[in-house]
Amino acid sequence: MNTLMHRALEQAVLAISRNEVPVGAVLVKNEKIIAKAHNECISDSNPLHHAELIVISQAFYKLQTLYLNECTLFVTLEPCPMCAAAIAQARVGKLVFGAYDPKSGGVEHGPKIFEHSHHKPDVIGGILEKECSKIMTDFFKEKR
Amino acid sequence: MNTLMHRALEQAVLAISRNEVPVGAVLVKNEKIIAKAHNECISDSNPLHHAELIVISQAFYKLQTLYLNECTLFVTLEPCPMCAAAIAQARVGKLVFGAYDPKSGGVEHGPKIFEHSHHKPDVIGGILEKECSKIMTDFFKEKR
Repeated sequence: MNTLMHRALEQAVLAISRNEVPVGAVLVKNEKIIAKAHNECISDSNPLHHAELIVISQAFYKLQTLYLNECTLFVTLEPCPMCAAAIAQARVGKLVFGAYDPKSGGVEHGPKIFEHSHHKPDVIGGILEKECSKIMTDFFKEKR
Repeated sequence: MNTLMHRALEQAVLAISRNEVPVGAVLVKNEKIIAKAHNECISDSNPLHHAELIVISQAFYKLQTLYLNECTLFVTLEPCPMCAAAIAQARVGKLVFGAYDPKSGGVEHGPKIFEHSHHKPDVIGGILEKECSKIMTDFFKEKR
């Protein structure tokens, strides 16, 4: 599990060099990475282009499947409500995230999306929490 | 207001011919339509391709702006949690929707996204409710 979260962290590191908020994600099926991405909100001039939405869309394109029940999404930050709801919509089987996001998260915080959704993925939070949290803190410290 | 909802309904009608769930949307700035779309989940093999996400992304592409505060989104159905959260994320100024969706809506139902979001658009529901609801009922009746 840590190995795959490290791959998501690599994506977050890449994001920094493009001045994007350092959130990275990989989508995995049968222990194989199907898709990987980081936030692209700045490069794409689109605040919806979060890492999670990008990997989910990439996966649908690649797998040409209707749902992602057999996939696990690794992401460095607790998904926001939009991404959490997209994860439910895409029926992703399992969600593994790194840092908790009390301010803008939508899984353990805010609207707690999976308490209302038809599909409820298995959820594990706090994997490599320290590293995933530090990369965000450092990024915003630098910005100030 | 009804005129613009009629334009969204036209999009919903177009969706039927492509076997898509008939939800249509238009995004408006200064009374001018910036973007229009219907659900594209089937054609794009992507269950995230709801009408609202498509018009928001089109608008960002066209306007090259950071937020959509000055825009109004007209959509024939109460947005789902993913789309409602995207509307908040994009800071859409105003949301006007047609039919209510007690089963899968995320504005007046389910996680009631705007009760938790940082940005809260003005919301008007129930515009041309009968027509917007009928097109959905007829579509699913046909499917059975």
